[in-house]
Amino acid sequence: MARVSQAHLDARRRQILEAAERCFARNGFHATSMQDVLKEADLSAGAVYRYFSGKEELIHAIVGEVIGTLSEVYGAAAAETPPPLPDELVPRALRSMMRARPGLMDGGEWLFPRLLIHVWTELLRNEELAAQVREGYERVCAAWGDVVRGYKDAGFMPQDADADALARVMIALAQGLVTQIAALGATPQDMEKALTDGVRALMSMRDPHS
Amino acid sequence: MARVSQAHLDARRRQILEAAERCFARNGFHATSMQDVLKEADLSAGAVYRYFSGKEELIHAIVGEVIGTLSEVYGAAAAETPPPLPDELVPRALRSMMRARPGLMDGGEWLFPRLLIHVWTELLRNEELAAQVREGYERVCAAWGDVVRGYKDAGFMPQDADADALARVMIALAQGLVTQIAALGATPQDMEKALTDGVRALMSMRDPHS
Repeated sequence: MARVSQAHLDARRRQILEAAERCFARNGFHATSMQDVLKEADLSAGAVYRYFSGKEELIHAIVGEVIGTLSEVYGAAAAETPPPLPDELVPRALRSMMRARPGLMDGGEWLFPRLLIHVWTELLRNEELAAQVREGYERVCAAWGDVVRGYKDAGFMPQDADADALARVMIALAQGLVTQIAALGATPQDMEKALTDGVRALMSMRDPHS
Repeated sequence: MARVSQAHLDARRRQILEAAERCFARNGFHATSMQDVLKEADLSAGAVYRYFSGKEELIHAIVGEVIGTLSEVYGAAAAETPPPLPDELVPRALRSMMRARPGLMDGGEWLFPRLLIHVWTELLRNEELAAQVREGYERVCAAWGDVVRGYKDAGFMPQDADADALARVMIALAQGLVTQIAALGATPQDMEKALTDGVRALMSMRDPHS
C-alpha cells in the first residue's frame, strides 16, 4: 500500500510540474498565476499546495530537474569507454530532455526551448534562482570535464587541451541551439542535424596555428 | 549646414536607441514604457516621437542594427584571405558589438547580453519581430557560409564539410556565450577565453569516424 501511495504522490507531483512548465513556457513566469497552474493541471488548490507553496518553489523544482537530467546524461557518458563524441552527445542530451518531460509536447511543438528562454529571463531578476542555476551549471561543467578526460584517455584529443573551456563551449552550443528552436522556429530535428554536421565540420578543421 | 544637421539627427537617433536599449536590457520590453525611454534619454516626447513612433519601432531598429553589425563583421571576414578562424572570429564579433554600442556599458556591466535575452523572450510572442529576426538570421548564416568557403579555399577544411551546419553551430555558440554572460554571471573576458580555448580543443579532436 505504501508503495502504491508513493507512486501516486510522485505521479501527482509530476502532473503539477508539467502543468507549470507548460504555463511558464507559453506565457512566462510573471504572467502565470498559480490559478493558471491549477487549471492546467486540472487539480484543486488543496491538491497543488500540498506539493508546492507557490510559483517560486515550482520554478526551483523545474530548474533542479533540468540540471539533474543534464548531469545524469553527461555523467553516464563519462563512464563510457570511450565517451561518445560531442556531435553524438549533445543531441543525446536533447533527446533525454525530451523523453524526461513528455508533458512538454504541445500539439507537436516541443515547449522546452520556450521554457528555457523564460527561465533565463527570470534569472536576470531573481538572485536566488540565479544562484541555483550557477551551482547547477558548475555541476554540468564538471560532468563535461569528466567526458573530456575520457576523450584524452582514448587519444581523441591532446592531453593539454583545455577541458573546462571545451565544457563551457559545448554547453553554450546546446543553449544556442535551444534558442534557435524557440526563437527562430528551427525544429529539433534541423538542429540535431546542424549540430552533428557542424561539430564534425569544426572537428575536421586543421588549425594552421598548431 | 545640411551635413551638420544630418550628423545632429544621427546623434540624436543614437541617443534615443541607446536609452531604449538600456531600458529594455534592465527591465524587458513589456515592463518598459515610452515614458521610461524619454526619461533615460533625457529628451522630450516631441524630440523622441519625431524619430520613433513607439516601442515597436524602437525594438525593430535595435534588432536591425544588431543584425547589420553581425553581417558586416562576417562579411568583412569572408573578404580576408584566409578568413580568421572561428576561435578568433567569434570573439571579434562580440568585440565589434561592444564597440558599436558604447552606451550599453552601465557601471562596468555590458548590458547587451541581457538585452538579447529580452529580445528572444519578445520573439516568442511577437510574430512580426520574429519574422525580422529570422530573415536576419538567414543573412548572418549566409555571411558565415562565405567565411566557410574561404576556409575550404585555404585548405583548412575538407571541401565536403557542411558549411550551413557549421554556420548554425557557430551562431549557436555565440548565442550560448551571450546567455552565459547574461544569466550565469560570466564576464565577456571569461567567455572570450573559453571560446578561444574551447573551439581550439574541438578543432584538435580527431574524429575516429573519419
